[in-house]
Amino acid sequence: MIRTLVILLLLMVTSINVSAANEPIQPIKAVTPQNSDLVDLGKMLYFDPRLSKSGFISCNSCHNLSMGGTDNIATSVGHKWHQGPINAPTVLNSSMNLAQFWDGRAKDLKEQAGGPIANPGEMAFTHELAVNVLNSIPQYRAKFEKAFGSDKIDIDRVTTAIAAFEDTLVTPGSRFDQWLEGDKNAINKQELEGYRLFKSSGCTGCHHGAAVGGLAYQKFGVYHPYQTDSKIEGRKAVTGKDTDLNVFKVPTLRNIELTYPYFHDGAVWTLEEAVKIMGKVQLDRDFSKKEVDSIVAFLKTLTGEQPEIQLPILPPSNNDTPRPEPF
Amino acid sequence: MIRTLVILLLLMVTSINVSAANEPIQPIKAVTPQNSDLVDLGKMLYFDPRLSKSGFISCNSCHNLSMGGTDNIATSVGHKWHQGPINAPTVLNSSMNLAQFWDGRAKDLKEQAGGPIANPGEMAFTHELAVNVLNSIPQYRAKFEKAFGSDKIDIDRVTTAIAAFEDTLVTPGSRFDQWLEGDKNAINKQELEGYRLFKSSGCTGCHHGAAVGGLAYQKFGVYHPYQTDSKIEGRKAVTGKDTDLNVFKVPTLRNIELTYPYFHDGAVWTLEEAVKIMGKVQLDRDFSKKEVDSIVAFLKTLTGEQPEIQLPILPPSNNDTPRPEPF
Repeated sequence: MIRTLVILLLLMVTSINVSAANEPIQPIKAVTPQNSDLVDLGKMLYFDPRLSKSGFISCNSCHNLSMGGTDNIATSVGHKWHQGPINAPTVLNSSMNLAQFWDGRAKDLKEQAGGPIANPGEMAFTHELAVNVLNSIPQYRAKFEKAFGSDKIDIDRVTTAIAAFEDTLVTPGSRFDQWLEGDKNAINKQELEGYRLFKSSGCTGCHHGAAVGGLAYQKFGVYHPYQTDSKIEGRKAVTGKDTDLNVFKVPTLRNIELTYPYFHDGAVWTLEEAVKIMGKVQLDRDFSKKEVDSIVAFLKTLTGEQPEIQLPILPPSNNDTPRPEPF
Repeated sequence: MIRTLVILLLLMVTSINVSAANEPIQPIKAVTPQNSDLVDLGKMLYFDPRLSKSGFISCNSCHNLSMGGTDNIATSVGHKWHQGPINAPTVLNSSMNLAQFWDGRAKDLKEQAGGPIANPGEMAFTHELAVNVLNSIPQYRAKFEKAFGSDKIDIDRVTTAIAAFEDTLVTPGSRFDQWLEGDKNAINKQELEGYRLFKSSGCTGCHHGAAVGGLAYQKFGVYHPYQTDSKIEGRKAVTGKDTDLNVFKVPTLRNIELTYPYFHDGAVWTLEEAVKIMGKVQLDRDFSKKEVDSIVAFLKTLTGEQPEIQLPILPPSNNDTPRPEPF
């Protein structure tokens, strides 16, 4: 009797594993940081607006961890209210991307983290000035000492720490992942239909892997051009090749319910419209309302547990700290 | 023997109480919220930039709980990078103020909370539109139901919730409070000298009570005018009286090390300079460098335990939610 039960259980476990392994999407795994001092430091830097010229904009301003790691506006607000050219991608699960930024111009999160700090339309600072600010604050030097073994502060260490924090920002436990892991009641019939349609119509050709995206570049507008006012050229800006015009890194669909508005221009505000457009321009397919609704229902099962963040208390500037210049 | 010990202990406790009671500054007490659902809701609203027209500015943008409840810039950045006219006061311990804003034009935190939302140079929204946004989000309606007993959302409830959260933002446990409570080693000789000088030279005339300020209005420039480019008139803007020109609510000195830059114009960046100026314009006194240093040392003992804030996860907007207009 007991032996039969054990065999049955083993069979069940095996079948679950096989079933998850056969799916184009894998569950997200929780991350246990190796160097928690480094992650703590990275979190402080992520929330510190003193990495910007104004003293007003932090990483969290546009990759807001209260709001799916985005700013939920079409394109971001930068220094002196500069209108950004592109929609801020979510920081959540971004460690799983093959490269960073929509056009993949940064090879990893560490390289990405340095970009906005020095971008005149974003944080508008320089790496040198940001490092000077941190260097003037003894409590920060002590944190670098703890994280790196010495209190030297340079942009390499700053971005290493920010990236280490961002590596922890994953969202396991979504209903879809529960389903992948064997809980067949974790998603309902419509959601499952949506997932099947998502696979059968070809969405998973690009949107696959643990992040449901992020693993490849793809032309946006395979069958029909995407109508936009945006002047962004995509990967052509990196490679210089005409064939890379309108080629973008495939965005993650994890937490897509939270990361509106959609596309690189942030022009589309509803998932229904986004799915319809993707069907048309990428697959030459006119999804019916019922089909759209089921895919949207599936997409909403991809919302995972959001990282629990204790707001960092930042050490104060002092008489030696260079002052912000907001105006 | 035991009886003697008990009597001795009683005498000690009494003497501590008497000693604290005789001081012009009282320790800050921790706050236990009566309605934690209301406080939770208030925290969400405090961090939600959808209370602004742009979708980019929240209460926490200018009263940043990572940075002493302020923005650490001279005057605040508002909608479309509008340069605010006045330095953002700290939200920490603000429930202890006799009224809110530098000029006391709001009678309490609830009345204050409505101000920035509708101020064209701050969040630039209207109360009606902010309420419409919240009303469109079922998860918010459920939170209001839990906090208030019904899911009606109006500006009165919104500001009640924000104020309830702000009421919890107190900072007990500073070294000075430990000293007040009987730990004579909590502050050093220089800090104690600073405190004595702070009392004997008259600072406590205005800066007293648990918040070391916040309990009275006072003219800024009693003996000599304060030199400033600011056009702010102070309490005259509220009462219309010429005698209220340059009269301000006495700001709290709690956490003053964290709430730079100083004064209503945010023009002074170091505590040393602030103390020197206050000595001159308010007391007609030229503090020596040694005196300034000791008062500054004392002031730094007023930094308390900062509130531990778990970043709220905000419910997403949906197809019915009015969209932000950042540009």
